[in-house]
Amino acid sequence: MKNSFGQSIIITVFGESHGDAVGAVIDGLAPGIPVDRSFIESQLGLRRPSGRTGTARREEDRFEIVSGVFSGMTTGTPLCIMIPNTSAKSSDYESIKDLARPGHADFTANEKYHGFQDYRGGGHFSGRVTAAVVAAGAVIISALKIKDIRIGTHIFRCAGIGDRGFGDYGPDIDKLNSMDFAVLDPEAGIMMRDRIEAIAAEGDSTGGILETAVIGLPAGIGEPWFDSAESVISHAVLSIPGIKGIQFGDAFDMADAKGSEFNDPFTVDEDGKIVTVTNHNGGVNGGITNGMPLVFRSMVKPTPSISRTQYTVDFVNRKNREISVTGRHDPAIIHRARVVVDSLTAFCLADLLTEHFGTDYLCK
Amino acid sequence: MKNSFGQSIIITVFGESHGDAVGAVIDGLAPGIPVDRSFIESQLGLRRPSGRTGTARREEDRFEIVSGVFSGMTTGTPLCIMIPNTSAKSSDYESIKDLARPGHADFTANEKYHGFQDYRGGGHFSGRVTAAVVAAGAVIISALKIKDIRIGTHIFRCAGIGDRGFGDYGPDIDKLNSMDFAVLDPEAGIMMRDRIEAIAAEGDSTGGILETAVIGLPAGIGEPWFDSAESVISHAVLSIPGIKGIQFGDAFDMADAKGSEFNDPFTVDEDGKIVTVTNHNGGVNGGITNGMPLVFRSMVKPTPSISRTQYTVDFVNRKNREISVTGRHDPAIIHRARVVVDSLTAFCLADLLTEHFGTDYLCK
Amino acid sequence: MKNSFGQSIIITVFGESHGDAVGAVIDGLAPGIPVDRSFIESQLGLRRPSGRTGTARREEDRFEIVSGVFSGMTTGTPLCIMIPNTSAKSSDYESIKDLARPGHADFTANEKYHGFQDYRGGGHFSGRVTAAVVAAGAVIISALKIKDIRIGTHIFRCAGIGDRGFGDYGPDIDKLNSMDFAVLDPEAGIMMRDRIEAIAAEGDSTGGILETAVIGLPAGIGEPWFDSAESVISHAVLSIPGIKGIQFGDAFDMADAKGSEFNDPFTVDEDGKIVTVTNHNGGVNGGITNGMPLVFRSMVKPTPSISRTQYTVDFVNRKNREISVTGRHDPAIIHRARVVVDSLTAFCLADLLTEHFGTDYLCK
Amino acid sequence: MKNSFGQSIIITVFGESHGDAVGAVIDGLAPGIPVDRSFIESQLGLRRPSGRTGTARREEDRFEIVSGVFSGMTTGTPLCIMIPNTSAKSSDYESIKDLARPGHADFTANEKYHGFQDYRGGGHFSGRVTAAVVAAGAVIISALKIKDIRIGTHIFRCAGIGDRGFGDYGPDIDKLNSMDFAVLDPEAGIMMRDRIEAIAAEGDSTGGILETAVIGLPAGIGEPWFDSAESVISHAVLSIPGIKGIQFGDAFDMADAKGSEFNDPFTVDEDGKIVTVTNHNGGVNGGITNGMPLVFRSMVKPTPSISRTQYTVDFVNRKNREISVTGRHDPAIIHRARVVVDSLTAFCLADLLTEHFGTDYLCK
Repeated sequence: MKNSFGQSIIITVFGESHGDAVGAVIDGLAPGIPVDRSFIESQLGLRRPSGRTGTARREEDRFEIVSGVFSGMTTGTPLCIMIPNTSAKSSDYESIKDLARPGHADFTANEKYHGFQDYRGGGHFSGRVTAAVVAAGAVIISALKIKDIRIGTHIFRCAGIGDRGFGDYGPDIDKLNSMDFAVLDPEAGIMMRDRIEAIAAEGDSTGGILETAVIGLPAGIGEPWFDSAESVISHAVLSIPGIKGIQFGDAFDMADAKGSEFNDPFTVDEDGKIVTVTNHNGGVNGGITNGMPLVFRSMVKPTPSISRTQYTVDFVNRKNREISVTGRHDPAIIHRARVVVDSLTAFCLADLLTEHFGTDYLCK
Repeated sequence: MKNSFGQSIIITVFGESHGDAVGAVIDGLAPGIPVDRSFIESQLGLRRPSGRTGTARREEDRFEIVSGVFSGMTTGTPLCIMIPNTSAKSSDYESIKDLARPGHADFTANEKYHGFQDYRGGGHFSGRVTAAVVAAGAVIISALKIKDIRIGTHIFRCAGIGDRGFGDYGPDIDKLNSMDFAVLDPEAGIMMRDRIEAIAAEGDSTGGILETAVIGLPAGIGEPWFDSAESVISHAVLSIPGIKGIQFGDAFDMADAKGSEFNDPFTVDEDGKIVTVTNHNGGVNGGITNGMPLVFRSMVKPTPSISRTQYTVDFVNRKNREISVTGRHDPAIIHRARVVVDSLTAFCLADLLTEHFGTDYLCK
Repeated sequence: MKNSFGQSIIITVFGESHGDAVGAVIDGLAPGIPVDRSFIESQLGLRRPSGRTGTARREEDRFEIVSGVFSGMTTGTPLCIMIPNTSAKSSDYESIKDLARPGHADFTANEKYHGFQDYRGGGHFSGRVTAAVVAAGAVIISALKIKDIRIGTHIFRCAGIGDRGFGDYGPDIDKLNSMDFAVLDPEAGIMMRDRIEAIAAEGDSTGGILETAVIGLPAGIGEPWFDSAESVISHAVLSIPGIKGIQFGDAFDMADAKGSEFNDPFTVDEDGKIVTVTNHNGGVNGGITNGMPLVFRSMVKPTPSISRTQYTVDFVNRKNREISVTGRHDPAIIHRARVVVDSLTAFCLADLLTEHFGTDYLCK
Repeated sequence: MKNSFGQSIIITVFGESHGDAVGAVIDGLAPGIPVDRSFIESQLGLRRPSGRTGTARREEDRFEIVSGVFSGMTTGTPLCIMIPNTSAKSSDYESIKDLARPGHADFTANEKYHGFQDYRGGGHFSGRVTAAVVAAGAVIISALKIKDIRIGTHIFRCAGIGDRGFGDYGPDIDKLNSMDFAVLDPEAGIMMRDRIEAIAAEGDSTGGILETAVIGLPAGIGEPWFDSAESVISHAVLSIPGIKGIQFGDAFDMADAKGSEFNDPFTVDEDGKIVTVTNHNGGVNGGITNGMPLVFRSMVKPTPSISRTQYTVDFVNRKNREISVTGRHDPAIIHRARVVVDSLTAFCLADLLTEHFGTDYLCK
């Protein structure tokens, strides 16, 4: 489905970095979901660059809900949300339009679209499109919250510095969701930001690992083949620009473990609920949620736009060249990416839950 | 789409471990693809347990092509391939049918299917279903080979032992595809097997990491949102029972790297082709193939069935219990899983290529 | 999705007229639906040729449920049902394999599949494949019956003879579902059969119009764009070989009517239920069911296989030729087609209902 | 997929009659399709009410291409086109918001959306949304024209008056595409319009039958099960508000015919091309195009909004009421609907062709 995703709830994204607007249509939403404009704004705020190291492109992110909302509630028909672009500076790109910025999609887009792609600012490949994803995701995140399903992501590792892991999920998630630079250990956060600033000063960039947890999910969601909860979330998360890997539970970290270590023993807890003692499987068995926190990590590669000189090619003239990317770019996007991960995670879960429980599941 | 996957070519899998048969339907295949029965057999052979440590359940895997092939070639209409089950011993499961084997889908299936699931041998969640995937995949792997697109997977790490990485892709892939226990370094393979045997003797199991490479892919395949090449492959691969993580290129291994290190500089090679000097991005930029080898790693968790006593619950009576899984099980499935990964990778690529180049792309 | 159909419940059909078997996979069925083998048999019986005028190919239609049923109930995983072919006589087709039987898919299949299609007996285009659709549909028809949703189809018109229209829907539907040659007016049925026999004696064939009614459907099912109840049903019904038109309610018959005549006025009935006084819209307003009987008619073209000499071409040698189709063929299939229409109608409704009310909707 | 449609090219529509805008996203378009703004305008002009009998709501239909077009050509990424609403008068609807206008979706929408639907002017069910479909369709119609595939629709029957049938397809199609009120026989057109005016004077409305022809289509497009060319077109066309029936070729009109009459004999024409002598099957055999003109008719019901008093209910209070629909409404929409039918037909064919020939098929 290319630029659309989902089965029972479908999101379609559109827009280019330097076009009129970016936007998204969500179809299949239950009617009667309250749409909280200030929450959408605050989510967009978490995605927006800020602080000492952020890109100098500062969009206001004034969004417009074009359709699908009436009297403050979803109608059940397609919700279109748009965010006009106001701060695009296309002239930055004219001079480098035939150069393949290393790590970017310039070359591959040219192969795919035969030169017709909008090259300005990465066009449809730009991180700018994630603003639309975040705005759409905000509607879903708040709907899930009404159902007591909560999602939080922290910067598990950045620029070589590690954060502490999740402790008590509920309070940790609440805390993260109010933070600009989401870490569980404030000391680690300070160190990360210092390191980012130092790397920026070298004309370089950095990435890291995000860790996401979801609590409140019922057991029994997902499919054996092929729409496992893990598959659906991976599909969405790995389409976020810059994300190159995902693991559920402890996966790669326990690649050397034995079955007796990796298996999560079941037990009946004091409330009579069936739980697992450990959670190495990240809340999913056989592709289906088991009611434990759903936990996954995703790897965000270092921002490919760097001012340091790099070797590259002019893909039109097929000649070797050098490039220094001088636009307005972030030395790290991991702290901004986490709200995109939250948004798409919310989307995937809302989709799976709606498919399972029916169209009205998210209806207040 | 639940138990179906794909856009232009769609695979649907069916069957239970102890039912009459497992099978798959592939729809959307080009007409005129030669179907090589002996290659299907040899691929099934690579998946089949064998040797000292394999499960004692030894299916012959006699497959039947029910439809879609005429005079040795695909017709273009749905190809159904079935593999009857002949060696199922259901009595092994009767006594433990209400117990949640740790790491397995017994509990989650019961939550999802309300007790109607076929519990015998894991039912539809059984690794047995992968035989159908491998048989169907063999048709596609050989079609891709005609197009000079080749896929190979080795056991990158198992039971704490590492293999060497890919060197010269072509010869390495050829070599792997003829091996029962696919490693690039024979010494590493011997050590892995010894270690597996030792772990089996403890009543335990192990897993590891697979590394897959695809060569011969054209640049320009995949979508920006949401059907990136990485997303589509992740979706398929993470639905394989036991696989819990995936990364493209060096992802998690270079989580601390800088942009100047992770970016792969472009250059024009001696043949005038645009290539990258390094391949940390695993052959994909912006979700689209760049013509370099597509490389990813997937984490296979240790086989959950172990004979060591584990804590668990009776999920019907909601009581704590102990379990020792006494059926016929492998202490490691990673060497068998790799052909499943190859099969689904082939499937994803054939699908993306067919969508891009049209229905007749794979037609000889 | 080519040979698959559905959103929440997906049916995939496979098989060729003279291959090993025809079959279908249904995915997304609720767990816990009772599977009544004798009802499947009786539905297959209604599709099977019989009587004076039927084709001489008489398949026993012994079906096998390969997967997805355990202890007589659906498991919730893919249900595969297969019907082996036992009575195929391929030699009938060898001599005419390059001739385009008029009204058949021989020429178009050759254009599409470049000569690789299985030409024997129409291959995948054969009416034989509908046996699989009927077997799969029987599972769904009986599940809907438990929900008090009932479907019936009569031969509204055949060979120039008209049947009476539906009167009291419930009893009429019950009556039709037990009849081999489904008409509401027995006299009309006798005349139709006489006429069919006379036409057969001329080496010719006939078709007609089926009328289908569904009662017990809740209001509120279907989508505004594009998955209206009418769209979804049309999609399925118009893929049945030989069906060339569909109308909901009185459509073409009231093409000259005024709004004041075609609009169905609403009223509150004695039970306080909102109903319409007339039903010219066939139970659907704005693409969504309104709780009235859903009524549509579909046109079945005359069987294209006739023994009378026809002009045609040899499409391989591109030469004009004559043909007389001498295989075993029905002079009318309309009475057999109706159970195929019922099956796919049931399928469409089950799909829309499951999407609306969730996966467990059909669970007993 | 609800408000989305298509496999290889996907259209999603959004917007409400009295919301900010209506719009559509088309995804999967080839890159490099020239986008002709003046053609979009002229197509919107054909849909816009006009003349003596049209609704008094006169929108300017200023469209905005939000994304997917760069330097006048499609980029290959999602094309979003929006048409702001400027002339909505919501006060007309406040007083009747709980009344079910007969023949409209008010009651069914309320059942489906539980009262959260935007009731103003029919909300998402309004014919207003078709403006977005027409704007999006214009891009595709002109792309098909470059491929020599041309589509034309005439008013085959309206208010009891019949038009002549297609004669020489090419010139007839060209002629229709420049007409506001598309008939092949100008006399018939004058009579139809007179009759519409007379019916309007009675406070009533009328409908009729459209006939659509497509020439230049290659043979071999469509699928046996379930995505036949007929199925795909029916799905789209029957989702247009007010369309209640469709037939391919002569279907219902030849319900009493014999096989020897309905079958279209094949012959080799003077250019060596295989054609059929007659075209009762409407250019489709076995669901697949045969290279003859694709011809179908669709029934447009009389506009449900009429000023004559009708019986209805207040669906909130479940009471009988009377209604006279006083908004600005057309006594006939058939002449405006035809460009919607053309648009969706173009869309379906572009989708099937792109799936068959690949993503770049429509690329100039």
